[in-house]
Amino acid sequence: MNLNPQFNQIGETFVKQYYEVFDGPRENREKLAIFYHAELSLMSFEGVQVQGAVNIVEKIKNLTFQKIQRMITAIDCQPTFDGGVLINVLGQLKMDEDPVHGFSQTFVLKPMNDSFFIQHDSFRLVIHNA
Amino acid sequence: MNLNPQFNQIGETFVKQYYEVFDGPRENREKLAIFYHAELSLMSFEGVQVQGAVNIVEKIKNLTFQKIQRMITAIDCQPTFDGGVLINVLGQLKMDEDPVHGFSQTFVLKPMNDSFFIQHDSFRLVIHNA
Repeated sequence: MNLNPQFNQIGETFVKQYYEVFDGPRENREKLAIFYHAELSLMSFEGVQVQGAVNIVEKIKNLTFQKIQRMITAIDCQPTFDGGVLINVLGQLKMDEDPVHGFSQTFVLKPMNDSFFIQHDSFRLVIHNA
Repeated sequence: MNLNPQFNQIGETFVKQYYEVFDGPRENREKLAIFYHAELSLMSFEGVQVQGAVNIVEKIKNLTFQKIQRMITAIDCQPTFDGGVLINVLGQLKMDEDPVHGFSQTFVLKPMNDSFFIQHDSFRLVIHNA
């Protein structure tokens, strides 16, 4: 058991850094590769599963929006028992001129050397049927 | 690395079993303890962090709703590298006569003996400001 007492700070810093790249200029999206592992990263994006940094970044680069605006409403972090962090993000986003959508994204950060990579990434838009 | 190829089936079966108890008669809620570990279970509930089966079930039992109706819109499962499962659930719920709310809940199932326990549980209602 190896809980990292800095889990909240690590999670919140990661979220800020990750979305800064994701939401930035479109040509920068391939820089997201630095957050993932070549093989040991799993992503679910709207139910589609992809593995490894190259495939994950390809998936993200193929998203057609040019601009994205994001508002985060909650970040919940928990320490994992290997020194990593489980992060749950809730918020809203607006892609180009689309309507505003809620979204939910979960990350599991895995420690490696003196840093972390995204071992799990699971993203869904929140659909309202109410 | 020890990915469980049954991760989808394990995750979906777990979600069904867990919510059957959670959403059932109020006096049954303490039976949720069987899903958690005495010490190695962490829960975040609307931002409040609780550890261990006793504290987690106490938290759930203290929720004041009598009846809950739930509709699940998405379950995304990923295998974890220790043979467990990461599960993300999105849906809607209605407690007593409250309005319908969206919710997001993440579970990490950890293998133990021939079964699993919930190592991480993170729950939030989805608030719409749009």
